Parts: sequence; C-alpha cells; structure tokens
Amino acid sequence: MATKRVGQSTIVYSTPPVIVSAATVAGPKESEGPMAQWFDETVPDDMFGERTPEKAERRFMEDAIKIAIGNAQVLPDQVNMMFAGDLLNQIISSSFTAEKLAIPFVGLYGACSTSVQSLSMASAMVDGGYADLALAVTSSHYQTAERQFRYPIELNIMRKSTSQYTVTGAGAALVGASGGKIKIKEATIGKVVDMGIKDPNQMGPAMAPAAADTIFSHLADTGRDPEYYDAILTGDLGRVGAEILLELMVQRGVPLGENYADSGVLMFEGVRGTGVGGSGCACSALITYGYIWKRMCQNKISRALIVATGALLSPLSWQQGESIPCIANAVVLEA
Amino acid sequence: MATKRVGQSTIVYSTPPVIVSAATVAGPKESEGPMAQWFDETVPDDMFGERTPEKAERRFMEDAIKIAIGNAQVLPDQVNMMFAGDLLNQIISSSFTAEKLAIPFVGLYGACSTSVQSLSMASAMVDGGYADLALAVTSSHYQTAERQFRYPIELNIMRKSTSQYTVTGAGAALVGASGGKIKIKEATIGKVVDMGIKDPNQMGPAMAPAAADTIFSHLADTGRDPEYYDAILTGDLGRVGAEILLELMVQRGVPLGENYADSGVLMFEGVRGTGVGGSGCACSALITYGYIWKRMCQNKISRALIVATGALLSPLSWQQGESIPCIANAVVLEA
Repeated sequence: MATKRVGQSTIVYSTPPVIVSAATVAGPKESEGPMAQWFDETVPDDMFGERTPEKAERRFMEDAIKIAIGNAQVLPDQVNMMFAGDLLNQIISSSFTAEKLAIPFVGLYGACSTSVQSLSMASAMVDGGYADLALAVTSSHYQTAERQFRYPIELNIMRKSTSQYTVTGAGAALVGASGGKIKIKEATIGKVVDMGIKDPNQMGPAMAPAAADTIFSHLADTGRDPEYYDAILTGDLGRVGAEILLELMVQRGVPLGENYADSGVLMFEGVRGTGVGGSGCACSALITYGYIWKRMCQNKISRALIVATGALLSPLSWQQGESIPCIANAVVLEA
Repeated sequence: MATKRVGQSTIVYSTPPVIVSAATVAGPKESEGPMAQWFDETVPDDMFGERTPEKAERRFMEDAIKIAIGNAQVLPDQVNMMFAGDLLNQIISSSFTAEKLAIPFVGLYGACSTSVQSLSMASAMVDGGYADLALAVTSSHYQTAERQFRYPIELNIMRKSTSQYTVTGAGAALVGASGGKIKIKEATIGKVVDMGIKDPNQMGPAMAPAAADTIFSHLADTGRDPEYYDAILTGDLGRVGAEILLELMVQRGVPLGENYADSGVLMFEGVRGTGVGGSGCACSALITYGYIWKRMCQNKISRALIVATGALLSPLSWQQGESIPCIANAVVLEA
C-alpha cells in the first residue's frame, strides 16, 4: 500500500472524497448575527420545545443530520458510520442521537476541534474504501456548556470581557466518493499543545499556539504558502485568540494575510453580549458547513484551509491546577 | 476504490495490519487476580506515587505506551497518530498523555468499548496508507471512575451485589503494516442500543444486548459461525451480563459455545470485593493485549473475536431519567 501521508500526520486522500451534502441548524443568538442567512434552519427557541437544554442540544444535532441526509436523498441505514462528538461529559448529545438514528457510531472527543476531527476521519473511511457514506457531526449549546463548564445560567454570573460565547447549534456533513462539488483533499492531525495558560476565560489565547502549530505543520508538510488558499478559517479563537495567532505566524515567518478569518469572530460580529466571539463545537461547524461550503458551491471560494481548535481541559483538571491542553485539526477543501 | 466493507459497517482490511507490539500496565487489585502473570507491569500503589488519582491514571497510560513503543524500538515522533480515550470527563487522561508524548492525537469516547474502537481506527489508518504506525490506547482507574460516576471512595458507600469493579490500568497497541505475528483482519462498528435499563448498577445487563447486536451483525456480515473463532471475548459484561448475552445469542439461534469468555469475569475471578467482575476501559484492553494477544503469539489461539462493550451514559443523563445507551465494537485478530 503506497503511503497517503506527508510529514508526521498530514493525510493525503488518494481519491478525494466529497461533501455530498451538509446542513446547519442554529440557535436564536446565532440567527441575530451576520451569518444567519447561511444556516439551513434557525431555531428561535434555544430549548427547542424540550424540558432540558441537553435534550434540546440533541434536537439540533438530529435535525442537522436529517437535513443533510434528506438533501442527499439517503436513509439512515445507507450511512455506514457516523463520527460525532460534542462538549458534554461522555458526549451524550452524540450517543443519544446515534441511538435514535441507528447509525453505526464512532464517538469522538476533540472539544471544539470536533468538526474537523470528524470530517477527517469520515473522509479517510470513504477514501480508504471502508464506507460508501460517512457522517461527520457535532453540536454545542450555550446552556449545556455554561452549566457544565462554568455556572448555571440562572445564577447570572458576570462574564469576563475575554470570555467567548458558546454557540448553540449543530452541523453535519455527509461524505461520499461522488455526488458533490467540494472535495476533501488533505487533513492534518494536530498534536496537543499547552503553553501554560490556566484561566478558562482565556480559551482563545490558550488555543492560538495549537492553531499556529497545526497550520505551520500543514504548510511545511505540503510545501505550500498561506497564499495557496483563498480562505483560511480558524475557530473558535475569538478576537483575542485570532490576533495572537496572526502574531505567532508572523514570528514563524509565515504571515497569514488577507484571506484569514476566525469562525468565532465571524459568528457574532455586532451581536451584543457575546464577548470576544463565538466558541463551542458548533461554531466552526456552522461557519464551515454554512458559509464556507456554500460559498465554495457558488464558486466564490476555491481552496479553503479549515483549522478547528479545541481546548481539552475539564473542570476537574482546571480545579487541580493544570493548564489547558489544546489541539487544532485541519482539512483542505477544494472546489 | 474497491469497497473494503461487508454489510453496513464491517470493515475488511485489505492488507491486514499487525500488532507490532502491545503493552499492559495493571493496578494492585488486578495483580491479585488470575490474569496477573500476563501483564507487562504491575503497580502495587494505585496512586503511582502521584497526588491525585487522575494524575496516576495518566501514568498508567503513559507507561503502557512507553513499553509498547519501546518494545518495538520506535520513538514517539515515528508514530503518526494516537487514537485514545478513557472514561473521564473530556478524556483528560488521554489528552494530557498525548500532550506529554507529542504524538498527533485523535481523541475517542466509546466508554469501555474504547479498546476495540481505537484498535479498529488505528488499523484503518495503517491499512488505508494514512499511517505507518498508529497507537490504540485506553485506560481506566477505580478511584477516578468511582468519584466521577458514583461516590468518592472516601465515603465508603456499600456497593450493590450487581456492581462491577472498575479496573485500574492501561493497555496500548502499536499497529503497523508489518513486524508482528498477529493480524487485525476485520472490524465491526457497533450501533447504539438501549433496552431501557436505568440502573447504573446494572451495566453488564444493559450492555449485553449491544454485544449481542454487534456479534450477530458481525457473523451475518462475514457469513461465519461462532465456531470459526477459537476465542470470543466480550467485555466488560461481568458474570450477570455474560449470562444474559449467552441467553440472547441462544434466542437468536447462534449459541456462542465453549470458546466464549468475558474480560470482566476473567479479570477478577476469586478476587474479593469485586462484585460481578471487572469493568472500565482498561478491562477489555488488559485481557486483549495481555492474555489474548500473548496466547496468540504463543500459537495457543489462532482466531479471536474481541467485542468490547461500552455504556454511554453520563451522571447527568441518568439524573435526568434517561436509560443507558450502550455500544459494542468488534475486531478479528488472526495469527
């Protein structure tokens, strides 16, 4: 078997799989932002008519999958594997959704990097011939994340100015060998990077070095410049994290240029009370499968480097005085 | 690309990768049991000299990886990807270990099915040509699991007679294209199955239907009888769960026969205070990479079907009155 890899861990898909369809379902705050027009479904009630926000989060994920496979005119039992993860302990949003849809399930945990992590694995399964169709799915929810990682929203705790705001929503991509315009060409699997930041209100700054590390590895492995891409999207770094990433890339001699944007910044531009931008697994997924993928389908973007970042801390590791380990995973989409 | 799959989700590796090396590190209780002789390292202090059991769990995982790659005379930077997961919220054992070793990391969550989940993914990466060497790793720890899922052990809560006892330890397998006697031939990715059991002291019975479902799918996909295998290992079902599985397979017309065993039962046979058997991610990993793999290397077992089971509940989903979603993943090992 010839190698389909360059460097330590950049996957080169030999027969690049395609995004057969993708779908995004967004909550109310996300629907106030500049990206609202790109989402397939916007839900005015973040509780989705459910009794708990955890059940609501599953509804977002379920709807995203149903729209994605429905648009592809596929039934759940034609999907060979579902790669999914979310922020909740034991990724219950993903496993309860996988149960409901009865699709063989590979649970992932990459925090907010899960969108790209799942897309890279689903693509390897299709390119490798192990799946005809594989799903890549993720979700997050402001209320479920706040009460698990910080405080229940009922306490009305004052948010710090450097905080990011967890995106409510879900994104799903159905990957196949043919039947779509946008190819998944390569993926770079990230290493865990920890620069010693311990403040969980500083997630963007904590994740920026991981993003820099993966982008740098990706460019070195493929022998490319940032200019090769007409869009480089990170996320969810937020405004502060994105500034740090730009500076880190200048220091490394590879400035990112005009085509760079961060999904956390794009999501909530001009939306009140969202701190320095969006975060959560759904942040990168909504911008990638909403904005980027659709712009690529419209021939407005031809090559995109998507770099999803995740902070791999737990409330317990933080309480035990550990700093925040972070990761960034990258995929290349081409029209 | 020719398909390398039969049925909905049984992967058939075209150039079966091999276990280049595997390693197991076990805690004190595990070292009292009948399997002790098969472990590479037994640690008399379950705190591993650390201040917290969470840090201790990472030491178990780190040692398992170091022994596995050391025996293969490989350095961490020669490993292309590490597939790892554990039971802790946000799988901190895995991500902190991946950080320390600086190996590109794909975090998984499959609860106690992670040993096989990670092995099937690592094998696909090698067979598909995306990795020369990939690690499959998992760990669990009695103290970290008790305090997260039940009660801190300091409370000395009386355990129910149907409870299983979380295994302390870690197992790692290094998968490559050549350089080992034991091949990974196929893998069956499980669906999430939920039979409505809500009592977290009944994990084995909750997981048995998932094991039955995956074994049945596997045999149907491959057109085999249970007799094809000279070892069928489930785990961690424990004594009660294993009895239920045997009965379910009789009902489905595919009785499992003499070659069937459960890793939870094997682990603690005759060890006091371990309820109906072992559980935890490390349970299946220790028996698979300790006993089964070594017996295969000694030509005592030639074909093994390894079926790792996981209960995908969280304390929150249980408190919210949800029943326990379960999964089982299978791999076929052949000498």
